[in-house]
Amino acid sequence: MFKEVINFIRTLYPKKNQVALHEPVFIGNEKEYINNCIDSAFVSYVGRYVARFEEMTSNYTGAKHSVAVVNGTAALQIALQLAGVKTGDEVITQPLTFVATANAISHCGTKPVFVDVDKDTMGMSPEKLEHWLKHNTKPSKLSKPSSKPINKSTNQPISAIVPMHTFGHPCGIEDIIKIASDYNIQVIEDSAESLGSFFKGKHTGTFGLAGILSYNGNKTITTGGGGMIITNDERFAQNAKHLTTTAKVPHKWEYIHDEIGYNYRMTKITAAIGVAQMEYIDKIIANKRETARLYEEFFQNKEIEFIMEPSNTKSNYWLNCIKFKDKKMRDLFLDESNKNGIMNRPIWRLMNKLKMYKNCLIGNLDNAEWLEDRIVNIPSGYRD
Amino acid sequence: MFKEVINFIRTLYPKKNQVALHEPVFIGNEKEYINNCIDSAFVSYVGRYVARFEEMTSNYTGAKHSVAVVNGTAALQIALQLAGVKTGDEVITQPLTFVATANAISHCGTKPVFVDVDKDTMGMSPEKLEHWLKHNTKPSKLSKPSSKPINKSTNQPISAIVPMHTFGHPCGIEDIIKIASDYNIQVIEDSAESLGSFFKGKHTGTFGLAGILSYNGNKTITTGGGGMIITNDERFAQNAKHLTTTAKVPHKWEYIHDEIGYNYRMTKITAAIGVAQMEYIDKIIANKRETARLYEEFFQNKEIEFIMEPSNTKSNYWLNCIKFKDKKMRDLFLDESNKNGIMNRPIWRLMNKLKMYKNCLIGNLDNAEWLEDRIVNIPSGYRD
Repeated sequence: MFKEVINFIRTLYPKKNQVALHEPVFIGNEKEYINNCIDSAFVSYVGRYVARFEEMTSNYTGAKHSVAVVNGTAALQIALQLAGVKTGDEVITQPLTFVATANAISHCGTKPVFVDVDKDTMGMSPEKLEHWLKHNTKPSKLSKPSSKPINKSTNQPISAIVPMHTFGHPCGIEDIIKIASDYNIQVIEDSAESLGSFFKGKHTGTFGLAGILSYNGNKTITTGGGGMIITNDERFAQNAKHLTTTAKVPHKWEYIHDEIGYNYRMTKITAAIGVAQMEYIDKIIANKRETARLYEEFFQNKEIEFIMEPSNTKSNYWLNCIKFKDKKMRDLFLDESNKNGIMNRPIWRLMNKLKMYKNCLIGNLDNAEWLEDRIVNIPSGYRD
Repeated sequence: MFKEVINFIRTLYPKKNQVALHEPVFIGNEKEYINNCIDSAFVSYVGRYVARFEEMTSNYTGAKHSVAVVNGTAALQIALQLAGVKTGDEVITQPLTFVATANAISHCGTKPVFVDVDKDTMGMSPEKLEHWLKHNTKPSKLSKPSSKPINKSTNQPISAIVPMHTFGHPCGIEDIIKIASDYNIQVIEDSAESLGSFFKGKHTGTFGLAGILSYNGNKTITTGGGGMIITNDERFAQNAKHLTTTAKVPHKWEYIHDEIGYNYRMTKITAAIGVAQMEYIDKIIANKRETARLYEEFFQNKEIEFIMEPSNTKSNYWLNCIKFKDKKMRDLFLDESNKNGIMNRPIWRLMNKLKMYKNCLIGNLDNAEWLEDRIVNIPSGYRD
């Protein structure tokens, strides 16, 4: 059975000796645009790549504003700060995510609270979220419109919810937004993995106050390293630009800064690669969805299950996933496939099991625990 | 008099209508190396630009280890954290600096304390530092070897000193190191502006536990945006790499991270530009020092004073500085020169005058106040 899977993956990537999980593809104007940057010694506005990359992102996602930054972690940290998250607060996220989600929350001086995922979406479970909020929070004594619910056990405010669209599959974001609104908590969507993924036709990252995207080395489109904040709120976007450019107050020559800022804006050369990649994002997504379709076909009626996009969604199928019946099978497969030059990897270790997050509050994590033992990512890169 | 200065600057940059303060120069292998990155789709180790950039930096500065990161602010934040700086501590720096120095200190959850500069170096004054420490600190009650002195007025430990080599001119670093050592405080040098600057033949940034460099858009060499941590301490360097790559524990496929890390490593494409720039850094520094020599010659016996490298040092003359007899003259000059297409700018607003740092502790800042009113940066970019 394992041999059959390995051989099938080889047919998908016939030219590769070692099949990677996801390699970037550069078949557009990347070189031309980068060379433009060098020729204009960066300082010229020829091309204005950062602004163009932001515009293209807004057009593609339907978000009114996009702000390009150094990476997805920085994007999430800044978005949380702008959502009003303060040192000592708590932020709800899911235990099944890449560590950057929890790190960005920590970088705000905030503690993550881990709420379970759904088995089908692998993203935050609306039911589990509502259950946790109902049993673990109380209303704030301050009855200001901005007052957040208080965690009963720690007495700290819950100031944001960060659902993540795992491997590109949209989570139940509509229900999450409704619950968050009932509890007066802002939602910042970690869409680092879901550029090109839609829930009921609306792009992930555009449901909450803001969303973030990532262009790290192995993402659907890559700039080598980069991120984006997307939002429909104009002031939020302006503040994001300000805070990520050392909070400098515009002046012809004076150096005045009005808050503790960051050096987090994306460089022109990074944006130049992003612009070139966005020009053919449709082609990349179509290619990835076709790969997913071939996997789906192959795994039909097999012991190993291929994970399909949740209902009501269109996924970018960033990293394709298969599900084993137990951890033992999973480990045997990982071992055999990696030995045979096919790079597969298990889903991440749950956040609450990592040393630095093991004392964080958690809800019931049955689904995340169940998935942790069974899910494996299989090669999903662009196929020539 | 102003007209004469403006005309002289025009002779230095004859091809420019608008003379910028500092433009990057790309006359080496920048394009070739970037194109290599794109051709190899980043993932190949052809070129291994990050490692090469680090090696070249170690060779050039004489530091045993170099760790490439996203920018100088991130470099300083990480270096401080690795020096043992903890939330709630205090870190001494100078009020006359670019805001990134104070921001990086704040990003560690730490408060800056501002100690005066010297008039000649424009960097931290050893005498003022010693005076402040003597009158404002007491020994820790814990008599561990790692115990830091305690700020008498706040009861917080002073856990690091961050001198800055202003505009490339080395400060009195040898004396600062001695004083810091007497008080058992680590020194992290902010050498963001002083790549290519030496104190008694030793590169700036290599005197304390670690130093940091910056390659932002207008620096002596630029990568569009980037930074470097340099140190002679092997474990410090290893920890810097670990902490800036999400603290991932090496494993073939498992995703385990053992502390709250950052996504702060430099991308390959950024490093590729850095490698190309480092190949002709000697040429760039020689060019800049020749510009400084021409300024020196021109300003001899004039009312406006040209600031020369301090004794015992060799400066990269990153941004050349002139000194006016008072603020009124300075403002008149700024106005006239900027109107005439010559980009000049005053030295930074002192950190303790910015909104977010106005409640920080300060020593006597006579020299910084005096310089703030009088110093202007004049065009200093590479001349063809």
